[in-house]
This record gives sequence, structure tokens and C-alpha cells, in this order.
Amino acid sequence: MEYAAIHHQPFSTDAYSYDGRTVHIKIRTKKGDADHIRFIWGDPYEYNDGKWSANEQPMRKIAATEMHDYWFAEVVPPFRRLQYAFVVTDDHEDIFFGSSGVCPYNEKTLETIHYYFKFPFVHEADTFQAPEWVKSTVWYQIFPERFANGREDLSPKNALPWGSKDPDVNDFFGGDLQGIVDKLDYLEDLGVNGIYLTPIFSAPSNHKYDTLDYFSIDPHFGDPELFRTLVSQLHQRGMRIMLDAVFNHIGSASPQWQDVVKNGDQSRYKDWFHIHSFPVTDDNYDRFAFTADMPKLNTANPEVQKYLLDIALYWIREFDIDGWRLDVANEVDHVFWKTFRQAVSTEKPDVYILGEIWHSAEPWLRGDEFHAAMNYPFTEPMIEYFADQTISASRMAHRVNAHLMNGMKQANEVMFNLLDSHDTKRLLTRCRNDEKKARALLAFMFAQTGSPCIYYGTEIGLNGENDPLCRKCMVWEKEKQNQDMLQFMKRLIALRKQENTLLTEGHLEWNLLDDKNDFISFSRTLDEKILIYFFNQGNVVQHVSLRELNIDRNKKICDAWTEQPLQHHDVIAVQPGEFLILSAAAPV
Amino acid sequence: MEYAAIHHQPFSTDAYSYDGRTVHIKIRTKKGDADHIRFIWGDPYEYNDGKWSANEQPMRKIAATEMHDYWFAEVVPPFRRLQYAFVVTDDHEDIFFGSSGVCPYNEKTLETIHYYFKFPFVHEADTFQAPEWVKSTVWYQIFPERFANGREDLSPKNALPWGSKDPDVNDFFGGDLQGIVDKLDYLEDLGVNGIYLTPIFSAPSNHKYDTLDYFSIDPHFGDPELFRTLVSQLHQRGMRIMLDAVFNHIGSASPQWQDVVKNGDQSRYKDWFHIHSFPVTDDNYDRFAFTADMPKLNTANPEVQKYLLDIALYWIREFDIDGWRLDVANEVDHVFWKTFRQAVSTEKPDVYILGEIWHSAEPWLRGDEFHAAMNYPFTEPMIEYFADQTISASRMAHRVNAHLMNGMKQANEVMFNLLDSHDTKRLLTRCRNDEKKARALLAFMFAQTGSPCIYYGTEIGLNGENDPLCRKCMVWEKEKQNQDMLQFMKRLIALRKQENTLLTEGHLEWNLLDDKNDFISFSRTLDEKILIYFFNQGNVVQHVSLRELNIDRNKKICDAWTEQPLQHHDVIAVQPGEFLILSAAAPV
Repeated sequence: MEYAAIHHQPFSTDAYSYDGRTVHIKIRTKKGDADHIRFIWGDPYEYNDGKWSANEQPMRKIAATEMHDYWFAEVVPPFRRLQYAFVVTDDHEDIFFGSSGVCPYNEKTLETIHYYFKFPFVHEADTFQAPEWVKSTVWYQIFPERFANGREDLSPKNALPWGSKDPDVNDFFGGDLQGIVDKLDYLEDLGVNGIYLTPIFSAPSNHKYDTLDYFSIDPHFGDPELFRTLVSQLHQRGMRIMLDAVFNHIGSASPQWQDVVKNGDQSRYKDWFHIHSFPVTDDNYDRFAFTADMPKLNTANPEVQKYLLDIALYWIREFDIDGWRLDVANEVDHVFWKTFRQAVSTEKPDVYILGEIWHSAEPWLRGDEFHAAMNYPFTEPMIEYFADQTISASRMAHRVNAHLMNGMKQANEVMFNLLDSHDTKRLLTRCRNDEKKARALLAFMFAQTGSPCIYYGTEIGLNGENDPLCRKCMVWEKEKQNQDMLQFMKRLIALRKQENTLLTEGHLEWNLLDDKNDFISFSRTLDEKILIYFFNQGNVVQHVSLRELNIDRNKKICDAWTEQPLQHHDVIAVQPGEFLILSAAAPV
Repeated sequence: MEYAAIHHQPFSTDAYSYDGRTVHIKIRTKKGDADHIRFIWGDPYEYNDGKWSANEQPMRKIAATEMHDYWFAEVVPPFRRLQYAFVVTDDHEDIFFGSSGVCPYNEKTLETIHYYFKFPFVHEADTFQAPEWVKSTVWYQIFPERFANGREDLSPKNALPWGSKDPDVNDFFGGDLQGIVDKLDYLEDLGVNGIYLTPIFSAPSNHKYDTLDYFSIDPHFGDPELFRTLVSQLHQRGMRIMLDAVFNHIGSASPQWQDVVKNGDQSRYKDWFHIHSFPVTDDNYDRFAFTADMPKLNTANPEVQKYLLDIALYWIREFDIDGWRLDVANEVDHVFWKTFRQAVSTEKPDVYILGEIWHSAEPWLRGDEFHAAMNYPFTEPMIEYFADQTISASRMAHRVNAHLMNGMKQANEVMFNLLDSHDTKRLLTRCRNDEKKARALLAFMFAQTGSPCIYYGTEIGLNGENDPLCRKCMVWEKEKQNQDMLQFMKRLIALRKQENTLLTEGHLEWNLLDDKNDFISFSRTLDEKILIYFFNQGNVVQHVSLRELNIDRNKKICDAWTEQPLQHHDVIAVQPGEFLILSAAAPV
């Protein structure tokens, strides 16, 4: 057994409160090393005849990656206090693994209390919790300047005719909030129930990430009343709205920055930024990346904190928005985000706080900052497998597993899963315009835990290379829309919403990872219901014999996509590039 | 190479801001696996001709445990943003290790940006910082009821004559604050410069952990004016004072609990506790351990939070105390401790916040809660080696290393290192009354990073089994005091204060771990100065030949204990049970 590969980190995503009473525990061993693991646990103060009274239960192997097996146990400590360790067994030895690492599995070790890990007290207050509604949300991301032009009168003077060319960096086409209001029936029909708008506040550029005034709607997008109309109509349709807050940096055209440029170290805003020397030149201050017109805000300054918190609360109080997506969230300090979370959640407890973080977001998802992050690291391996075809099915599954194992279950359940955005190539382009691939990839992502999001136009076949080409005008002429894709998306969204609890909380099990034939199968199970997915990314047809799936005879099986009932003896062909979703549940 | 044993956790004690500019990075490999490791790093946004411009530097192996080698690098990212990965090399391969685990070390991997770990921005606000004065503090823990009786008139009626018997659980002997004031010369002469008092607030018991009123000094200990005198006299002598706050639970005699017992669910305090049903019985509420007269406080209740914060601020505002030691700190929720830290550090920025945590305290030492924890897990292996003789020298060193590697360097530097307390056997008793062992163990602990603390009476040879026997009356009669031990402690404390910066920040290197002969050597190095320690816990004399230590010829060597100069050719005998400390520095 490879002792050096055994790993459990107390007080992390390896040991956390799931719901204020239940503790989830994970431990990692070298792949194939351990046959089984026993979880030893008890209340640290409970003794019988001078001996610590411990319980024992088997752990369940819930995932594997290239290198490791992951084992899981959950317990509800009666007095909310927990002391625990592990006994790892392979074919020729048992070892004790605790806070001092590997020890011989004997009476003396078991009695040495400081060899045990501790989970001192399970506090509701320290439990990661997220707004419940997020679990049943399918998101739709809109880049307002390119969705729909509902008010020609608002459009910038230099606005080009809608869709007249592929966009350049500084082009304007006149999309606005009225355009979104006008298309709410379309969005409701599509089935999405959460709208994420990239920034809508006053800013010179078409993307509006160079904020001029956080308290005003950009005049080319509309005005407060129009925005109020949009929000209320969304809410009436049971839909939610999330705005984009750019707090890492501000636009150089903003009055605050202009004051500093003008008045140098006499400016009242000089400490709102990270300025290294005065007067301000074009390279003596911190900015977003190396973008001179996006000076970085000093979020450690109480004045800046108050200014940004006022903004956050203003759009909640005045317009009842439902979420904040936080741009470049990872480069702002944790101390500010904790203050932000306290203020926002106090104002409206079920506001969803989503951070733009392209890497492991674990430190922001500990319960006192964000509810979720944009889950790029989770979907990247899926894209590399389906679209790029640069990694094998098992490598993709292992990286998906590794990502899930790096999170708390209840955090994974509300992550923001996306395959493309205004910051990436469009999905279809990444799939080299292979529509079938794009559909399979969408179906695969929609089958995972977390809230799925589609980027505007995916549903009608928009493509595009990286920014600015991923920000083309939405196509509204039906005949230019890919209607097959639209129907497909409506069905996929409907299926997700129908099976939402299972796909959010259900256990993920990989049944088949056939690298040679590029044939994948996994199941999502919750209580008595199971969805079994098959993806054929190979070149030959694959046949699924239902009998071989060992589904309980009393369970009703059907094709979840077509809702056609199936028989236990059926054999179903899955053509190259296609997928199959079986649903098995006890008859109602 | 054992890929499955390679481990680096981003956003943890493996990757942290040391001082608001410098990032410390650690990675762990299987012991003996890697020959060297290269640290690849750069600003995530810095590209040259479309290629990410990365830097490369070798990592240093800084520690080993039974299973692992630990490698270290520190960098100062020019724009405070960092993207990094590792190249691990053994005798026949190089591998790339990044956020997606092990990858082939080739151009394609190096160019895949999402394979890199991120440290998005080095923020001062997110940097763990502690009061500077703690690094130069040698602490003295006092159990007030048993230190000195300065005011017979304050003593409880049933107080026993001082030191007339070994204490039983409920005995009183009349120690008080006046007794401490009377002994300040003694303490100053001893050399300690930080006093930690176990609770002094009104409470029925002799230990006062069953608080009756947090706002009043126990009448048997004194009154506010006497306490003010004690604090001011300590401060005049350049000494600090830390009080003990018992916020996990309150005494059952407290008015709040009595009100709940009397008025049940009509009591205004009913939500101050975790009461499962009414009326209150003796087992339907949460308490400390299973101690009925210590009902657990509900620190998620805003009223309780305010009550406890007012207490914390009262003793700082009114009496200018310097530190809070937080009893059973691990069982109170993190949300409350973050509020506590904000309130206390705002009131008096250099107050030291010390949590009583007997296990890994990493989650409380992330910069927004405690400055330190009582470092029992750090000293336990030292005690098991020197006193219990149940583990080998190398096992002890490995567990010491593992503990240090689990912390940020600047947190390790202010941990509260103790060998015994009111909650453990006395050191001398744990050493089976072998005074030489106790001295060696004290010298070993005083040589480590972190602030050392001695428990009252250790310096004059007090012994005692676990509570209550570890709480005997202090012995003041000179002839009953172990004067050798007293002189030894004065010298040890003086040496620690003299070499404080080196012993706090210096690098620890194990030179020799001879399990067979129980002969240990390690060095502490900072800039040009080095202290080399030798501990002979074997049965035969050991000889240290200075020439073999390869100390720079131009360096002056002396016996740090006796301050006697030594020659480079000297050979020094270290008798069984003894220790030697050599000091080598460039001539002044």
C-alpha cells in the first residue's frame, strides 16, 4: 500500500458540514491500493469505563481519478461533535490513518486520542448554504448590446445595422433592455428561467466592463424604469435576473479616475486605487491585466468598500435583482468579499453571489463569501473530450471527478456550469461547427450537478471565434435560425427541469469509459430513480442491451428524451455522435 | 516516481502571502522520490509574442517526514499576480505538476494555461499578520487560585492553609491578584515578559471556567482597582497580560442560565443556549463535554454575540489587557470568531488572540480569526520522545516537521508553545521526575519557532499528575524551591530573549537524528548567525568535533549557554541526558 499517497485534509472539502447536522468525510488513496476503508468516529467526550467509545462504518468508493480512489462517509454526530480516523485495508495489511499520519493498527494507536482528526462542532452558521432556487434554474447569458434592438432611438449614433457584419472590438449594433423585454416570450418558450446580463451600467464601450457610473443604466440600454419593467416581467414569469458587478476595476473615464488624473495626490480619490507615484502616467498604477483604461480599485479602502456595497445594495433594494455575478472576482481581496456577502445576504437572503473564477474556487466557497463560481474548470475537460478530441474519455471523467472531489457537495450543486461565454470561443466553433458534437456536449453538461447556463444564440446555432467574434448579433429571422438546434435545446432544458432534483443531488456513477471506441456511460441516481446516459463519440454504432444493465424488473424503463416506454429485453442502437438517456423508476 | 503522492493545495498553507508581497509556495513529494523541483511562475497576463512569459527557479527541500519531502520557493510577483506550476525531476523523468495533476512535461502542456495553479492577487488585507511583540515574548501561565495569597481577607472562608495538602477538585487555597502583584519582581527576575492568567471573573469554582459574571473580578481574587494595578505594573515592567475568555459555555449559576431554568421557554435567555425542549432538565441542552453545569452558549444568536463582544472590548478598554486566550475555541463557530477578531483588532490592533485548540488549527489561522493556537500538537511529539520515550528521534522530528509544514511560516512564528498546563500532567511528572529530562525538553522547546510558555512552578520543580494535581500551590519558601532548576530557567529564558529573532524566524535544519544512540542535532540559521543544538538522550557520552561541523573559519564560535568562546578544533563531550548549544557568528 502506498502510504505516501493517502490524504485527508481536516476542515476542508474533505470534512465539512453538509446541512448543519450531517458531516461529509472524504479520504483519498492511491488508485487500486485500498480494498476497503473503515471510518472510526465518535463524540470526543464519550467514554465507557475509561475507554473512548467509537463507532465504525464502511466507507463507499465514490470516485476515481487517474491517480486516486476517493472514499466517502457521512455521519450525524449525536452531540454535533466528532473525532475520527480511518482504517485502510488492502489484501495484506490494515493501517490506521489519523492526524499524525499512518500508524500501526493496534490497541495502543486506537487509544491515543491525539492521533484522531477532529471536527469540533457542527455549526449551522459555518455550513455552506446557497439559495434553493438556484438548483432549479437554467440560465441564459445575454450580452445586451448584441441581443435585440428594441429601441432604435436609444441606439448609439454609430450603431451599425443589426447583424450587418461580424463585430469588431469597438462596433455598436444597438442592443438594449427593451430588446430583452420584447423577447421574454421567446425566452420563456425556450424554457430558461434565469437571465444573466453582462454589465448594463453606463460605460463607453460596447461590453460595459469599463464602468463610468455603477448607479445608472447605460443610456443606450435604457433607463431605470425600463429596467424595472424588465425585472418585474421576469419575476411575473417566475424567472430570475443576475447582473454583472465589475468591482476589481473601474473605467478610466469614471469621474473618480479622472479626478485623480487631474488632481494627482491632492485628489480625494487618490487612495481609491493602487497608484505607485504621482502624477499618474500610463504605467504607474495597478490595472486589470495590462489594460490602462481599467484602473484597479483599492478594495481595502473603507471608502471604496462603502461605495461598492452601496452599489450592490442599490440594485437589490431599488430593482429586486436576484443575483450578482462578480467580474474578475479572484483578484479582489477575501476580506471585502466577506463584507459583501454579509451586506448582500442581510439585504436579501436568497440573492445568488457568483464569482468569475477560472480555476479552483474552493477558498471563495467556504460559506462566507460566494455561493458559486463560473465552473470553467469543470466543463473544460468535457470540451477537450467532445470538441477538441484531445483527451480520452477516461481522462475527461477523471478530471471531472477530481473537480467534484475538490468541492463540497452542496457547493457543487449550485455551481454555474457553462460551455462558452462572452470570454471564450462559441461552443459551435469550438466543435468545429459540428452541430452533433455541440448537442452531445450540451446534453453531457446538462446531465451534471450544478446549474447549467447557455450563452445567447447557442440555441439557434450562433458560432464565433474568441472575442469579439463570440459577440455577434443575435439572429431573429426564423429562417436564419437553426430550428433543429432550437427544438433540441427546448427539449434538453425541459428534461433538465423535469429531472432537476436528481440531476442536482443524485449520485454520479461512471458505468463505462471505453476509450478505444469512445463510448461512455454514466448514471445519476437518487432514491429509487435512475437516469442512465450513453454517449457514442466513436465511429461505429454501439448497442445497449437493457437486460445487461441489471435494472430492477419492477422498474419502468423509458427513453427519457422521447419519453417512449421501453422493455427490459430491448436492445437500442446508439449511432456515432449520438446519445441515449434511459430513465428507470418504480411505476407510479 | 510516485505520482499519487505528489500534493500541492492552492490557497492553503501550501500557497500564501507571507508579508503582503512575498508568496510562499510548498509542494510535497514521496520521500526520496524527487531529485529536484523547478518552480515555474509568472504574471498570468504577461505574454511575449503570444507566449506566456514564465520564470523558473529551483525549489529548496526544507523538511522531510516519514512519508514525504517538502519543497519550498518564495517569489515576489512584480504585479502581485501569480500563475505557477512545478516540474518534478527524478533520475529518469521530468513531469509537470499543475492544477490538473500530473501531465507530460512538454511544450503543449507548458502552453496549456488552465493547467497552471493561480494565486490571483497578493493582498495585504488577506495576509495573516500577528502582533509583532508576541515574537519576543516568553509566557508564564498562572492559575490564580494557586499562585500566591496576597490578601488573606479576600480568601474564601473554606480556604486551606497554603500548600497544606495536594489539591482536590473543589479545594480553595486563597491565591489572588495581590499575590501576583507581590511577585512581579520574582517574575521579572525570572525573565518572563508575558503573563497568561486562567479565568479571573466571578465564578463559584476554584478554576473559574464556570463563569458567573464576565464583567466582574472574582471577589476572592480582588477587585477592578487591584486588577488595574496589576496591569499597569506589568506594563511598566514591559510585560504583557493575557486573560482567559470562556465563550463556548457559561456557568450554570449565571443569571442567564438560572433565568432559563426558572422561566423555561418564557425566559428572555431561552435562545442564548442550545436547549432541545422545555422545561430544562439535566440532559436536554448542549453543554461543554457532558458537564451539566457548563451550558453551551448559542454564539449564532446576535444577542449572545453582542454580550460576548462587549465583554471582550470591556477588558481591553477599561484595563488595557494585551491578549485573549479563548477556552474551547474550536467548538465555537467561525462566523462569531471572525466578528470577534474584527471587533477586538479594531479596538486595540495589537491584542493577541490565542485559541485553545488541541489539534490542527489551520482553519482558525487564515488571517481573519486567531493569531495563534495553544501548540499542543507541536510539542506532543517532543514530550513523547524526551519524556515518554515512546517514539524515536526521527519519528519526533518528522512529526515536528509535519506540524510546521501544516502552517504558514508567519503563523508558526507566533504560536503558543507549551509543554504542560492546568489541563495536563506537569512536565516534571511526565518526565517521571527526571529533572535532567525536563531541562533537556525545555531547552528543545525553547529552541523552536513560536512563543514559549512555562506553567507556574515549572521553574522551581513543581510536579503533579493530571487535574487537580497539576494545580498545586506555588512554593515560595526558597529552601523548598529547586534552585538549580530556577537558575536553569532564568538562563534558558535569557538565551531565548537574546536570540529571539533567529529562534523565531531562522531556518530549522536537522543535522543528525541518530535513533540508535538517541543523539540529535539541529541548527537554526538566520542570515550570518547559526545556533547548533545537540541533545544526547542516549546512555553514552557523545563527542562533538567542531571541525566536522564545517563552520566558516572566520566565524566566532562559543558555547551559547556558558558564553565561553570555543576554538574550531575543539571537541566537546555531551554527557547522557545533557545538551549543547553552539553559537557561530561573524565577529562583530
